[in-house]
Amino acid sequence: MDLLVEDKLLEKRLLDFLEEDLGFGDITTNALIPKNAKAEARIISKRGGVIAGIQEACIIFKLLNINFNPQVKDGDRVTGGQTIIELSGLAKAILSAERTVLNIMMRMSGIATETSKIVDIAKRINPKLRIACTRKTTPGFRYFEKKAVILGGGDSHRFRLDDMILIKDNHLSIVGDIGEAVNQARSRCSFSKKIEIEVEDADQALEAARAGADIIMFDNMSPDEAKKTLDLLEEKGLRDKVLIELSGGINPENIEKYMALNVDIISMGYIIHSIKALDLSLDFKKTK
Amino acid sequence: MDLLVEDKLLEKRLLDFLEEDLGFGDITTNALIPKNAKAEARIISKRGGVIAGIQEACIIFKLLNINFNPQVKDGDRVTGGQTIIELSGLAKAILSAERTVLNIMMRMSGIATETSKIVDIAKRINPKLRIACTRKTTPGFRYFEKKAVILGGGDSHRFRLDDMILIKDNHLSIVGDIGEAVNQARSRCSFSKKIEIEVEDADQALEAARAGADIIMFDNMSPDEAKKTLDLLEEKGLRDKVLIELSGGINPENIEKYMALNVDIISMGYIIHSIKALDLSLDFKKTK
Amino acid sequence: MDLLVEDKLLEKRLLDFLEEDLGFGDITTNALIPKNAKAEARIISKRGGVIAGIQEACIIFKLLNINFNPQVKDGDRVTGGQTIIELSGLAKAILSAERTVLNIMMRMSGIATETSKIVDIAKRINPKLRIACTRKTTPGFRYFEKKAVILGGGDSHRFRLDDMILIKDNHLSIVGDIGEAVNQARSRCSFSKKIEIEVEDADQALEAARAGADIIMFDNMSPDEAKKTLDLLEEKGLRDKVLIELSGGINPENIEKYMALNVDIISMGYIIHSIKALDLSLDFKKTK
Amino acid sequence: MDLLVEDKLLEKRLLDFLEEDLGFGDITTNALIPKNAKAEARIISKRGGVIAGIQEACIIFKLLNINFNPQVKDGDRVTGGQTIIELSGLAKAILSAERTVLNIMMRMSGIATETSKIVDIAKRINPKLRIACTRKTTPGFRYFEKKAVILGGGDSHRFRLDDMILIKDNHLSIVGDIGEAVNQARSRCSFSKKIEIEVEDADQALEAARAGADIIMFDNMSPDEAKKTLDLLEEKGLRDKVLIELSGGINPENIEKYMALNVDIISMGYIIHSIKALDLSLDFKKTK
Amino acid sequence: MDLLVEDKLLEKRLLDFLEEDLGFGDITTNALIPKNAKAEARIISKRGGVIAGIQEACIIFKLLNINFNPQVKDGDRVTGGQTIIELSGLAKAILSAERTVLNIMMRMSGIATETSKIVDIAKRINPKLRIACTRKTTPGFRYFEKKAVILGGGDSHRFRLDDMILIKDNHLSIVGDIGEAVNQARSRCSFSKKIEIEVEDADQALEAARAGADIIMFDNMSPDEAKKTLDLLEEKGLRDKVLIELSGGINPENIEKYMALNVDIISMGYIIHSIKALDLSLDFKKTK
Amino acid sequence: MDLLVEDKLLEKRLLDFLEEDLGFGDITTNALIPKNAKAEARIISKRGGVIAGIQEACIIFKLLNINFNPQVKDGDRVTGGQTIIELSGLAKAILSAERTVLNIMMRMSGIATETSKIVDIAKRINPKLRIACTRKTTPGFRYFEKKAVILGGGDSHRFRLDDMILIKDNHLSIVGDIGEAVNQARSRCSFSKKIEIEVEDADQALEAARAGADIIMFDNMSPDEAKKTLDLLEEKGLRDKVLIELSGGINPENIEKYMALNVDIISMGYIIHSIKALDLSLDFKKTK
Repeated sequence: MDLLVEDKLLEKRLLDFLEEDLGFGDITTNALIPKNAKAEARIISKRGGVIAGIQEACIIFKLLNINFNPQVKDGDRVTGGQTIIELSGLAKAILSAERTVLNIMMRMSGIATETSKIVDIAKRINPKLRIACTRKTTPGFRYFEKKAVILGGGDSHRFRLDDMILIKDNHLSIVGDIGEAVNQARSRCSFSKKIEIEVEDADQALEAARAGADIIMFDNMSPDEAKKTLDLLEEKGLRDKVLIELSGGINPENIEKYMALNVDIISMGYIIHSIKALDLSLDFKKTK
Repeated sequence: MDLLVEDKLLEKRLLDFLEEDLGFGDITTNALIPKNAKAEARIISKRGGVIAGIQEACIIFKLLNINFNPQVKDGDRVTGGQTIIELSGLAKAILSAERTVLNIMMRMSGIATETSKIVDIAKRINPKLRIACTRKTTPGFRYFEKKAVILGGGDSHRFRLDDMILIKDNHLSIVGDIGEAVNQARSRCSFSKKIEIEVEDADQALEAARAGADIIMFDNMSPDEAKKTLDLLEEKGLRDKVLIELSGGINPENIEKYMALNVDIISMGYIIHSIKALDLSLDFKKTK
Repeated sequence: MDLLVEDKLLEKRLLDFLEEDLGFGDITTNALIPKNAKAEARIISKRGGVIAGIQEACIIFKLLNINFNPQVKDGDRVTGGQTIIELSGLAKAILSAERTVLNIMMRMSGIATETSKIVDIAKRINPKLRIACTRKTTPGFRYFEKKAVILGGGDSHRFRLDDMILIKDNHLSIVGDIGEAVNQARSRCSFSKKIEIEVEDADQALEAARAGADIIMFDNMSPDEAKKTLDLLEEKGLRDKVLIELSGGINPENIEKYMALNVDIISMGYIIHSIKALDLSLDFKKTK
Repeated sequence: MDLLVEDKLLEKRLLDFLEEDLGFGDITTNALIPKNAKAEARIISKRGGVIAGIQEACIIFKLLNINFNPQVKDGDRVTGGQTIIELSGLAKAILSAERTVLNIMMRMSGIATETSKIVDIAKRINPKLRIACTRKTTPGFRYFEKKAVILGGGDSHRFRLDDMILIKDNHLSIVGDIGEAVNQARSRCSFSKKIEIEVEDADQALEAARAGADIIMFDNMSPDEAKKTLDLLEEKGLRDKVLIELSGGINPENIEKYMALNVDIISMGYIIHSIKALDLSLDFKKTK
Repeated sequence: MDLLVEDKLLEKRLLDFLEEDLGFGDITTNALIPKNAKAEARIISKRGGVIAGIQEACIIFKLLNINFNPQVKDGDRVTGGQTIIELSGLAKAILSAERTVLNIMMRMSGIATETSKIVDIAKRINPKLRIACTRKTTPGFRYFEKKAVILGGGDSHRFRLDDMILIKDNHLSIVGDIGEAVNQARSRCSFSKKIEIEVEDADQALEAARAGADIIMFDNMSPDEAKKTLDLLEEKGLRDKVLIELSGGINPENIEKYMALNVDIISMGYIIHSIKALDLSLDFKKTK
Repeated sequence: MDLLVEDKLLEKRLLDFLEEDLGFGDITTNALIPKNAKAEARIISKRGGVIAGIQEACIIFKLLNINFNPQVKDGDRVTGGQTIIELSGLAKAILSAERTVLNIMMRMSGIATETSKIVDIAKRINPKLRIACTRKTTPGFRYFEKKAVILGGGDSHRFRLDDMILIKDNHLSIVGDIGEAVNQARSRCSFSKKIEIEVEDADQALEAARAGADIIMFDNMSPDEAKKTLDLLEEKGLRDKVLIELSGGINPENIEKYMALNVDIISMGYIIHSIKALDLSLDFKKTK
């Protein structure tokens, strides 16, 4: 899985990030570092994890004429102390870019690392299961967060409200009927979109499957309820016609129980919105 | 403490956030919700915490002609289940804004909540101590993260590389001498900027204080080293001429020891970069 | 079907359109029209057609404080000479907005009108058939063109390259095998995306259906070939598992033959890229 | 005639066009095409016409590191099947750029082709006659459409409302008097602007010429009326003091009659707003 | 003369100006001024002059919900101490807007005042003479500077390089021949543009007039040379067929001599690029 | 002192400046200059002064593929007639960039020159004195104006309202008490900001110094009052604890008296808002 756009299309956003940190300039570096002073530097991971953000870092280095030599690839697992990218160039440029680059990489790598942790458990228990994130992202930074999930082995789920129908309880509180909601959605949106619907119990799941939903989300079901619902769908010959996504109420204590079920996707917002950044630092050395 | 800009100046950024989520439109809502359907809704905190992002949420609601009635103020502490904002208006508008508003508020409130936790401990141990964040922020979202720290009772530290001199080890590896670095900084940057310098031991601290630094950052010192350094500064009559900031190596186990020292600021990146979002949800009810 | 975003999210783009036409200002109006002169005006369709762009026009009028009173709704069919919107306000404002508003509405209405013409034939011959546009749109104006297709009764197809997998001959020239291409796509992209594949003959269609493609596009097949391929899919029990889209080589002479087939979608780029604008004009009258 | 800005000034707009099509990325290409796969490709015209948009295409190819080798120049006439540009580079980059480049070139070439058709007739009948477009353009794409007209041999007319005075019936409905309108315009706008005025009959034309208008537009006059008006101007010795532009009511049936008159400019909105795109395609071939 | 665009089209630029000054917010006002504190204020001119920038100021006040009551109109002459605009509203909002508003008005009024000084002399000596500015403007602020010239009674000359042909010595150094340059320009650019050419002596002026230039600029001629050239044009019956613009070498000592000549326009860059800002201040008074 | 950001971060703004001047293109150059014509050119200072804007000019030349060879550095003093930058490349590119480059350099150099004049006097009378500008800048151009002041040897003062507390009379009219204002500011804003306060007499100065202000601005004091106030601070042992800034009422006649005082900073808005641009021109020569 991959989420790549051409470097050129990321430049503007990355320059905006640099500008957010630089304002009128890096006054410390301007005051102290001779314009032509050269330096070498290395970006190092202080802990083990999965690295993300190398493409972004390298675009920034290129924009600022800093030489870069990545030692690992986006999505690689590293150990504490491992060098991620080697750098050389004007000391001034490296120091001005440092924080922005680390901020991008630390957040993306934190997300990739957490995602990868869950994905690894899933692989062991249920190899075909997908771990997906949600639209619970940091405003303005969604592309990078979704990409980090993918680099950690996860599924990006919807990019925006425009790329899949997802009927939630709030919509149902107005439309009323599950079957009607699915049918309305199918007739009123493009054939190119999948239709997913959130259900709360087995009856609703059955109704959704019969209405031809592409994906059914079991919302906040206990493992037992989920199992019972899956069995019912199987029994009615509907299980293979839909994808099943579990969401809500899943935590480290119960996740393995959920994973053991015959479901297709488990989605979890926390792998983006509540992770620890991966601790990276930049080691810097003046060169003659 | 406060970090406020006029509503009008935030509108563009908040519309960009909405657009990131909406793209060509909320196709589910467009397919299912009648254009004139009315609804009421409440934003609720599922856990206790400190709320931030109400100003931002209300700007978005106003832009979309949704009626809003905040039940608490930015920076207020809430309990689990408490209503934050009451809403009414077109169902369509509320549903389209839901995720973006919650994403802003959940992240900001998560930061305010974590900051507040540390600040409360500090208040008990050392009432004049400030808890500050750093420049380790999510690219594109810094203003909102710094503001959340302030709403949690913390100090925003530098907004950008242009608003205070902060001389770090990387700079010193080129300039060499602490005294010279401080003097160069003073002569080469505007009188309107403070000068802070990072030191690693008592000797460096002394040199920095003698050179007239405004703020000295003790980097990664153990509580004992920090204590020794503070005593030395006191002894030499220099302690009152500078502010002392502690940074690095501080964790839940040792933080109270650090707080008990005669220092002015403790800065911690994790209150922005590694927090859990505060879990908020939007309860939605169709009205006739 | 509908493609609506909140008015507020369109304002920036519409102001950019106004600015493209105005530059340093409407020098003719500035020179000749007293600042406080009032006027009434009507936007009139000089020919029959389907109207689109009313939402956009009204946003512009609101931004410029012009009173507006639409006489029809987006997607309505009008006859030559019919009034679309009645206006009143400052003469200066109406004259400055005239061309930009008409340019938006004339192009959108031209697309809606042409789409509607094809959709009406389809409704008569094969009521469940969808007429879709493609990504052949005017750069910078795609949202408005896709929306016009929908208002004309058509299907918007992909908004962008990121919202459905569509495997074309160019991709196959590298991947080689249809089954493998479908499988790779399924395993490497999000579960939330449909997978469509372009095929050139019955064998490829069979292979695509067996690989589990969601949609199969018959590219440039004659009505006979298409018929034969559909029969084969039917025979193998695969027809109901996929949607079938026809594309390429369809023209006014043969379109009814294609429509009579048991297919789901016919897509045609020309309803966006090669249409006549609907001729609209603004009738203007000074008021005291 | 030419309308060229430096490549660098077009990059931002062209990247915006790419981004409109790409969003979070070309998910099909990302899923199927190996990152290092190389390809060759050719942009081919499927029909004869006048090519425009080569400068724009080449800027995009350069931004994406695709090697390009144009076989013709902007404004050249090509035959069906002729190669326009040869390409080589990463398959991924070529496939991601394909649609945006073709959309730009197809629309611009369609406009250039139609313009050229009219211009060729004019050259035969009245070599000094100019064929001009109007401000009826696609919002956001005007620069490219005006440039295409010029490449087809036409005249760009006003770029915006700020670069020439053009007094229309709507203005006259407020100012009242033609002579006064021309005089007011002359005294109230910069000496650097020409003044054009729309007239409906011979009397108005005479009044306009006497008031010193630089250009007189005969609006919707029949060939006979136009002839009579021109004779009158000639008779009064005013014909050589003004340029005469014909506009409105001109169609394939009567255009040659209009062209045969002693006029300077015929302007037609349809060469931009109602043309067929020129059918171009990209032939793609994997290379080792 | 007037240069007005609708308020709505200026908002974005004015908000950008506010943001340039505010950054993360007005920290002084945030720290000291209660959120609900009310105030009244007046913008006062400390010296006599011609006021410009009131439209812009009022747009900003409206955006920030400040009540405003202009006491004079754009282009009015004021005396030292005179009140320009009265304000009331939140103290916080007024203080945050103060500097940006004054910066706009002080520069625009300085330009209007200087322009008006020259225009007044011209009116006395040669009432039909126009005083024009040039393209020597502050990057990013041209619209406002040109508008200020107009408000001071001057002529805006070219807005950009695209709205009139102006052939200078640098172009002639390549084209060589004046007649050929004018003819090429006429045949290669739109009929809607005037053609001006810079000449250095009487012979060139004659050649330019014969070639049909619309405007001839006498570059750096002494009053005597200019007189001689004008006489020659008169003698040859060409004077009335062109406008004559004087430029270069004009200063307070010799300007009246130039004004006394039979010329149409005198253009001077300094009325924009080298003027004193008009000294304005904001008087502020807390209200209960 | 220096105010530098990486070239890449200035490109967007500089391209916006070019676009403001170019619009649809340089129609004169397009009409007359062969696309491949080469030229050499030199930017020359017509008067003596201090040059600023070379970095900006060179970024523009690089963006347009013009070869450049600066003969002096930013901040260097030049004499009338001296060459600043030598250029070679396509004639078309040089002519299109000419005005924008000169506009940037002329304004920046005018500011640097005027600043330098005052700084030179200060160096002679009071070598440790700083000459600072204010926030009275041209909206949209502040970065370049502040940088020009620095290149002229001056101090940039606040970049924005967010980088230092500066308590003025307007704030005091609400807070009332100087000591309280300083204390509130200190407790409510980040430790990283300096606190400056404007005072009107010796008593206020004493109060401000006692409250611990970092900087005290003497507003509109006569040299005698300022002297008396400084003596009082000295007498109370407070002079060394604060920086003293003089502002207001300083002019060429009395400035040396002010400079002779024991103050740290004299700030003057006019070195930005009321200077003469330095007269630069571009000499152009066709090459074969």
